[in-house]
Amino acid sequence: MIKKINVGLIGFGNVGSGVVKILKNRRALLRDKIDVDIVLKKICDKDISSRRDINVDRELLTGNADEILNDPSIDIVMELMGGIHPAKEFIIKALRNGKHVITANKALLAEEGAELFALSRERGKAICFEASCGAGIPIIKSLREGLVANKFSNIYGIINGTSNFVLSEMAEKDCSFSEALKEAKRRGFAESDPSLDIDGIDSAHKLILLIYLCFGRFVSMKDIFIEGISHISISDINYAQELGLEIKLLAIAKKVGDELEVRVHPTMIPREHLLSSVGGIFNAIHVDSDLAGELLFYGPGAGQMCAASGVVSDLVDLIQDVKAGLFKPTMNVVLDGSIRKLRRIDEIESRYYIRFMAIDKPGVLAKISGVLSTEGISIASVTQKERKKQEIVPIVMIIHEAKERNLRQALEKLDRLNVFKEKSVAIRIEEV
Amino acid sequence: MIKKINVGLIGFGNVGSGVVKILKNRRALLRDKIDVDIVLKKICDKDISSRRDINVDRELLTGNADEILNDPSIDIVMELMGGIHPAKEFIIKALRNGKHVITANKALLAEEGAELFALSRERGKAICFEASCGAGIPIIKSLREGLVANKFSNIYGIINGTSNFVLSEMAEKDCSFSEALKEAKRRGFAESDPSLDIDGIDSAHKLILLIYLCFGRFVSMKDIFIEGISHISISDINYAQELGLEIKLLAIAKKVGDELEVRVHPTMIPREHLLSSVGGIFNAIHVDSDLAGELLFYGPGAGQMCAASGVVSDLVDLIQDVKAGLFKPTMNVVLDGSIRKLRRIDEIESRYYIRFMAIDKPGVLAKISGVLSTEGISIASVTQKERKKQEIVPIVMIIHEAKERNLRQALEKLDRLNVFKEKSVAIRIEEV
Repeated sequence: MIKKINVGLIGFGNVGSGVVKILKNRRALLRDKIDVDIVLKKICDKDISSRRDINVDRELLTGNADEILNDPSIDIVMELMGGIHPAKEFIIKALRNGKHVITANKALLAEEGAELFALSRERGKAICFEASCGAGIPIIKSLREGLVANKFSNIYGIINGTSNFVLSEMAEKDCSFSEALKEAKRRGFAESDPSLDIDGIDSAHKLILLIYLCFGRFVSMKDIFIEGISHISISDINYAQELGLEIKLLAIAKKVGDELEVRVHPTMIPREHLLSSVGGIFNAIHVDSDLAGELLFYGPGAGQMCAASGVVSDLVDLIQDVKAGLFKPTMNVVLDGSIRKLRRIDEIESRYYIRFMAIDKPGVLAKISGVLSTEGISIASVTQKERKKQEIVPIVMIIHEAKERNLRQALEKLDRLNVFKEKSVAIRIEEV
Repeated sequence: MIKKINVGLIGFGNVGSGVVKILKNRRALLRDKIDVDIVLKKICDKDISSRRDINVDRELLTGNADEILNDPSIDIVMELMGGIHPAKEFIIKALRNGKHVITANKALLAEEGAELFALSRERGKAICFEASCGAGIPIIKSLREGLVANKFSNIYGIINGTSNFVLSEMAEKDCSFSEALKEAKRRGFAESDPSLDIDGIDSAHKLILLIYLCFGRFVSMKDIFIEGISHISISDINYAQELGLEIKLLAIAKKVGDELEVRVHPTMIPREHLLSSVGGIFNAIHVDSDLAGELLFYGPGAGQMCAASGVVSDLVDLIQDVKAGLFKPTMNVVLDGSIRKLRRIDEIESRYYIRFMAIDKPGVLAKISGVLSTEGISIASVTQKERKKQEIVPIVMIIHEAKERNLRQALEKLDRLNVFKEKSVAIRIEEV
C-alpha cells in the first residue's frame, strides 16, 4: 500500500499556485518515483476568495495559518508568502511543532537565517530553500550535497534576473537604463518598485545563502558591499564592449589569502567567459571548488514554475525521510576554518575601468595620470574618445590592479579639479 | 558517540586513489557534516605493490575482491576498476550480499545497466553513478533529485573532454585533427588508443545514462547513431566560424512529437549559445525541462579529483541512509509515457552545412542545386570560396531543414557525378 504524507502550504500567490499545479498535475509521476502519495492537506492565504489559475477544493483553503501549524498530521510546511513577518513566526512555530519547513524566502533567510537555522538544528527539523536562489536551478543541492567534499575559493553569481535583463537590454538595444527598466516592467520582469532588484539587495540576500553553504558562515547584510546598476550608462556598456568586456551585476564571494571578500556590484568581465553570455532574465552561478574544479550552473532565475520546481524538489527530499520515519537533520554546515575575517571594500584590490568626461583643456590627461601615479595607481590603457563640438572629451582608462581605497582617493582628488563635466565613473573588472 | 560506517574500494587506480585521498584528507570535514566516520576498510586491486600518490596502510590492501564483497561489516562498495568483466560480476555480488554500490563505470552501465539496475531494484540496494558522466559536475543528482518533478524535451551534451579539447585546439590553433590529437596525447588528455573518445563511443555511453534519468528508458548502444570527429577538417571549422557557427561533438536526445532522437555527432551550433563557449576538456550538459526551463551544467569533464569528488558525493548520500538503518532504494526511474518510439537517423530533420570541393567546370553549381531540388532540399545560403590555381573550388552551403535520408540520397548522386575532387562533407546544424 502506498503511504500518504500530508503537507501544508502557507502563501497561495504566484509560486504557491505553481506548487499546487505541480502537486495536482504530477501527482502520479511523483508517486511513481517515490512510492508516496503527497497530500496537500491545507492551503493558507490571507486572500482565499480570489481566483487562481489552478482550481482547488474550497475545503482546502483557510485564512488561519494555525490550521496548518497546529495540525499534527502535517509533516511539512511550505512557506511561500514572502516578507519577514509573520513568515518568520510561522516558520518558528512549524519547527517547534516538529515540522520540516520549505521556503523560497531569501529576504527572510538572509535577515533572520542565523536564528532560524539554529532553531532548525536544535529541533532536528530541516529548513530547505532550493528555490530561494536561482529558482529551479538545483544550486543549493549541488553545493550542499553534490560538492559535499569540496572547499571553495570563490563564487561569482548573476543571481538577479531583473538586473541582468536590464543590462542585457541596454547592451542589445543600445538604450538607456530607464528605457531598459521600462521594458522590464512592461514584460513583467520588474516590480513597480524595482529597487530591491536593481539596487543589488536581492542579489546580496542570495549571496548570503551561497556563502553559508560554501564557506559555512552566516554573514549579515551590513558585511556586504552593495552597489546597484542604476548609475550604469549606455556609454560605459559600449566602451566596455570595445574593450572586449561585458557589464554584469555580480554577487561575489572571493577568498584572498585568509580573508573573504563579499560584495555585489556591476562588474566588467571578459567576453570569453561564460558568465558574459548569460542574457535576459537568466541566472548563472560560477564557483571554483578545489576538487571538482570550475563549475557553472545556468538557468532561468525567476518564474512561477521554475521556483515551484525547486520547492517540489525540496519536498521530495524531505518526504523520503519522513516516509522512513527518519530523524535526519539537514546536513551540517561546516565553517571553513581557513577564513580569518571579512575584507572591507576599501581593502580589496581590483582592476578598474574609469571614465572621465573631460572639459577639453590641454593638460587634463597629464593631470589625471599625475594624480593616479601619486596614489601608486598605474594605467594599463587609455582611450581618448571622439571629440565633439561641445568640447567634452570622454577619457576611458583601464588601470592595473589597485587598492580600492587608493583609487577612491585619487578619484576624489580628480573630481575636485574642475576639469570634468561630470563625476568620474569607476567600474571594477574581474577576470573571474 | 560518532557512528562508524565501513566502505570498501575495488580499483586503486587514478580515480580510486583520488577517493582515498579525499577520505583521508577530508575525514574530519565529512564527519562534521554527516556525523559519521567513514572508515575505508579494504582496498582491492590486482596490483597492490606499486606506489600511489597517497600512502595507505599495507593492511588495507588485498588482491582478492571477496575480502570486500563477503565482508558483512562493509555496507558500501565503490567499483572504480573499469572494464566490463569482472566489474560486472563484482557489482552483482555486492548487491546480492546486501551492499550499496557506487561506480564511475559508464561503459559497464551503458552495456549492462538494464540488468544491473533491475537487480538493484530487486535487492533494494542502490547503484550510484554520479562520476560516470561529467566527473564532478553534479548532473546525475540534479536530473534525478533537483529536477524531480520535471519532464524533459531534450538533452544536448558536450560530455567527452578529449573530443572537445581536440575540436577547441583545432579552432584555436588553426591546426589539423591529427596535430590537435597529438597535443591532446602530449598533455595527457587522450589515451594512446583514443578511439573510444574521438569516435563518440564514450559520449554515447554517457548519453544512455542521461536518457535513462530524463526519459526513463534504457536505450542500447545500437539505438544510438554515432559519428566521431576524426573526419572534421580545419577548413570546415574555419568556414563554420565565418558563418557564426562552432563545431562541437554533441550527444543529443531530442523529443520530436512522440519520438525520441538519440545521436552523437559533430554538430554546428550558433556562436551565441553557451555550449559553443565550452572549450578544452570542459563538459557541459544542456537540458530543456518543462518547469525549470532551459538549464546548463558546466565543469571539467575529467580528472582524478573531479571524478573522486562525484564518487564521494554518492558515498555521503548512501551513508546518510545506512546511518539511519534505512531501507531506501534509489528513487524510481519512471518511463516518460509520451515517447512512442526511437527515431532512426535517416528520419531526422535538420539543417546542414555542406562542403563540396568542386573541380572548376562551368555549371557545377547548377548541377548541385538541380540534384538538391529533385530531393526537395532547399538552399539557405551558398558561398563559393577562393579560387586557387589548382582549380579546386570549395563550395559551402547551408541548407534549410531537410530529412537526413533525402540529403544522403542527394549527396550520393552528386558524389557520383565526377565533378568533385573529394567526397562531399555534411555536418548537422542544431539551433539548440
